[in-house]
Amino acid sequence: MDRLESILPAVSWLRRYKRRDLFGDLSAGLIVAIMLIPQGMAYALLAGLPPVTGLYASTVPLVVYALFGSSRQLAVGPVAIVSLLTFSGVSLIAKQGTAEYLALAALLALMVGVIQALLGLLRAGFITNFLSHAVVSGFTSAAALIIGLSQLKHLLGVGLHSSHGVFPLLAEALQRLAETNLVTLTIGMGSIIFLLTLKRLAPRFPAPLVVVGLGSLIVYLFRLDQRGVGIVGEVPAGLPSVALPALSLDAVAALLPVALTIAFVSFMESIAVARSIAAKERDKVDANRELIGLGLANVVGSLFRAYPVTGGFSRSAVNYQAGARTPLASIVTALLVVLTLLFFTPLFTYLPKAVLAAIVMVAVFGLIDLKEPRQLFRLKPVDGWTLVITFAATLLVGVEQGILAGVGFSLLVFVWRSAYPHTAELGYLPKEDVFRNVRRYPEAETFAGVLMTRVDASLYFANMAFLERRMADAIADRPELKHIVIDFSAVNDVDAVALETLAERRRELAEQGIDLYLASVKGPVRDLMVKAGWVETWGDTIFHPSIKHALAEVGVELPAKQRISVSFGAAERNP
Amino acid sequence: MDRLESILPAVSWLRRYKRRDLFGDLSAGLIVAIMLIPQGMAYALLAGLPPVTGLYASTVPLVVYALFGSSRQLAVGPVAIVSLLTFSGVSLIAKQGTAEYLALAALLALMVGVIQALLGLLRAGFITNFLSHAVVSGFTSAAALIIGLSQLKHLLGVGLHSSHGVFPLLAEALQRLAETNLVTLTIGMGSIIFLLTLKRLAPRFPAPLVVVGLGSLIVYLFRLDQRGVGIVGEVPAGLPSVALPALSLDAVAALLPVALTIAFVSFMESIAVARSIAAKERDKVDANRELIGLGLANVVGSLFRAYPVTGGFSRSAVNYQAGARTPLASIVTALLVVLTLLFFTPLFTYLPKAVLAAIVMVAVFGLIDLKEPRQLFRLKPVDGWTLVITFAATLLVGVEQGILAGVGFSLLVFVWRSAYPHTAELGYLPKEDVFRNVRRYPEAETFAGVLMTRVDASLYFANMAFLERRMADAIADRPELKHIVIDFSAVNDVDAVALETLAERRRELAEQGIDLYLASVKGPVRDLMVKAGWVETWGDTIFHPSIKHALAEVGVELPAKQRISVSFGAAERNP
Repeated sequence: MDRLESILPAVSWLRRYKRRDLFGDLSAGLIVAIMLIPQGMAYALLAGLPPVTGLYASTVPLVVYALFGSSRQLAVGPVAIVSLLTFSGVSLIAKQGTAEYLALAALLALMVGVIQALLGLLRAGFITNFLSHAVVSGFTSAAALIIGLSQLKHLLGVGLHSSHGVFPLLAEALQRLAETNLVTLTIGMGSIIFLLTLKRLAPRFPAPLVVVGLGSLIVYLFRLDQRGVGIVGEVPAGLPSVALPALSLDAVAALLPVALTIAFVSFMESIAVARSIAAKERDKVDANRELIGLGLANVVGSLFRAYPVTGGFSRSAVNYQAGARTPLASIVTALLVVLTLLFFTPLFTYLPKAVLAAIVMVAVFGLIDLKEPRQLFRLKPVDGWTLVITFAATLLVGVEQGILAGVGFSLLVFVWRSAYPHTAELGYLPKEDVFRNVRRYPEAETFAGVLMTRVDASLYFANMAFLERRMADAIADRPELKHIVIDFSAVNDVDAVALETLAERRRELAEQGIDLYLASVKGPVRDLMVKAGWVETWGDTIFHPSIKHALAEVGVELPAKQRISVSFGAAERNP
Repeated sequence: MDRLESILPAVSWLRRYKRRDLFGDLSAGLIVAIMLIPQGMAYALLAGLPPVTGLYASTVPLVVYALFGSSRQLAVGPVAIVSLLTFSGVSLIAKQGTAEYLALAALLALMVGVIQALLGLLRAGFITNFLSHAVVSGFTSAAALIIGLSQLKHLLGVGLHSSHGVFPLLAEALQRLAETNLVTLTIGMGSIIFLLTLKRLAPRFPAPLVVVGLGSLIVYLFRLDQRGVGIVGEVPAGLPSVALPALSLDAVAALLPVALTIAFVSFMESIAVARSIAAKERDKVDANRELIGLGLANVVGSLFRAYPVTGGFSRSAVNYQAGARTPLASIVTALLVVLTLLFFTPLFTYLPKAVLAAIVMVAVFGLIDLKEPRQLFRLKPVDGWTLVITFAATLLVGVEQGILAGVGFSLLVFVWRSAYPHTAELGYLPKEDVFRNVRRYPEAETFAGVLMTRVDASLYFANMAFLERRMADAIADRPELKHIVIDFSAVNDVDAVALETLAERRRELAEQGIDLYLASVKGPVRDLMVKAGWVETWGDTIFHPSIKHALAEVGVELPAKQRISVSFGAAERNP
């Protein structure tokens, strides 16, 4: 990778651009644009913004990502979950529909972009690992439910006021069910049925564009807007003007939690999509490069009145399936949105909001994943609980608190687990010539006066107390004990407290006439023990290459290996 | 342990009380009381409270801990760091010297007690493991510096106003150095020198009591209080009246962060002291029982106008060395403090604050630990950095933020480490008959067409991407590769994402004509693979008991073992 390429990754695909990629890029760009235009407007509405903001967010950010991102097929733009987070953050400090609300949404995009770009430049993409799979899955399902319910007001044509909290919203909707505008409901439900049917029967058919067109036409012809059907209204024509988001320290401080949440969550969604496409193409995605690409898309987008964007799951999949070979496809999409902004906005004036609500609802209910919790509960109940806790906290407390609760619970589980690690007493299996847990292999042989154990964890201050207690119990149970052999093959790390405790225990045991041997200590751990002065104190002989070596030192005779097993290797074959 | 004992642990030592323990308990109780009376007043002053509050906190909580705690020699009472934290929390919401300040300090004790008791009842003592050794050490050193500097005002006799921030305080002290009251400074410096000298020459001599007596006497005889020497003033005689701390939701919310910090930090200090004494006595300390004991001591104490207490390091050590055999010693201490409150408070009227400041300063500068950071930097630089970051943040930003920064950085390091685990290509050492990292043992033998690797980490979503990249690089470097053997002996856990990725990779490699073998998979991990359906898909043969078994399957002949090493066991000895 040369210098120019490392600054502007687009040079790589531009230089190698092949004429035969052009058709795929053009048609994929067109198909994604057809999907993006209604989705962009719908998601902007979800974020509490005018629909045109969704179109603005579908222009400049796409081009910037095409130039700086690392995925060749990722389709960047407004997505449902980021829109929900934008709403939850901005609506707390500004009133929807005001100029301040618009300015804060752009500021939020700037902040998200700066955070992402900084994380990428610092090569700190790894910190998104705080969000485990279970947390992301639980959060996504809950967010999908919240988003779906938030569209009820457009679907029923009733101005519901409970903007925060799922149950207050449901209660209000039920109370005011009688006020439902039946024409609106019919348009909305008709759109949902149409979208769901075509999704199943003809997944490649541009159903959203069709419902948008048909819905607008029906409203226009029958002047349904005069019968209470909410419409998008006049969408301002023309490109977004350039404007630096107003920077106020108070606003930045107030938006910081939601900006961090969006930066993490949108990156997680984006990198997951990019990786799954790259794996199919045997291509590579660099997490830090990806953060920089997304970050710049958001930063530059914020100057053009956009709100936070990311790589979305459904449009990226469509982009890839429709034959996109390079980021040129996204540039094509952006150009088509620009053309729409310049010439076609009058077409959206009579677009019923109920149609946009139907598009959002159909899109997000696909995000509710019931398979994942079942699989997690089967494999690892605690991961299942992490998912359930994240889901419940997101739904009941709030979208940012939900993620925090999930991360907090994961960390709690991690600390709990590492404080109480699995240990095993080992016995010898002559047939396989290996040492195994005597609880699982009761036939494994143990030797009088010798305790062989294995610790399945790195040793550090927080689990030494537990392990010492285990060891003390084991010693108390065996009055005749003379030798303890600890298998260190699963100890990947030790800290200063663990080293000190081990050394002290070794001395104390020696006073009681019990020798402590370490077997299969791996290089990095051994280095630390050497640094701690163990070799100076005890000599190199405290490290035994294997349990067998330690047993030989102790004078244990292993039972003869039975020759009925597979024979392996010269050592056994030519005795 | 019978039922009564499990509710009231004191029953255990009361039932078995022996007459010969009595002398040790009585004399230790007396010696600790002599130490505690001046320290209690000094620490209360540090917490921004009147000195008598320190005496109140030295009565009821001691008795409650004696009845419910699990350590036999822990000396509970006011300690320096908890006093600093109390000051930093309460002084933000109330003005020092007001009734509100007193009420909030008692409320804080109640909150700390409830948190600790709840953690103990939920058996959640493990969550204090979030505070690593490095964080606690860095925090303690910084807190000691802050406490020492906070006493400057009493030592110089200048009313410094910069109560928060080390550097503003130092700057103000330097600016106003000319205002120093020389008599006060002489008394303070004299006390410090006296205390330090006796600490070295006669560590068991009750020097604090002597400086308190001498200092008071000198001030009284020469009426130095009329020459600007700050004195304690009238200390109200009599026992504390019972009063429920005023509960207001706002106050609880404002104090919650500092209450959590005190609950954790004071438990860490307490359990460390209790464990180190118990280890010498071959006694046991139960962390959850300890939390309940400390929690109840704080809860009941808060009803008697106390402020948060914990088991202190220095007094517990003195208690143990002075011969305390049971918690009766603490009850004796408490009774002596009660006698003091009833009859001797007039003696403290002329006690100069500079003497109390000297006692605090001498006590806390012993807490500054320079050995620990040096050892950490030598053994594990990243732990050293954790200490330095905690130290710097505590000193420069604030005491609670310092702990948070330390915990945050530790978690960051943990996530970073587990995202980029250590891996090794293995080779065979015939002499030792083991498999080792070829980088460390270049003489280790490898076999054409076979790659043997070891992963030194549990596998989960956050490190699979890194490990897959490593694997892909290794495969790209070896065009002739046919078999990959992964040594799973250091893999202590796998999550659902890791299982899925491994299964997928195994299928993909098979398509490329490369077999993937797993060796030495341990029981708990194997269980998860079985649950994930691996055995149904691939049969039981995917699990090889050892690398040797996997190599035998592949048809590799291991070189003959050389007989010059120690011989171990029948298998080799009787060929």
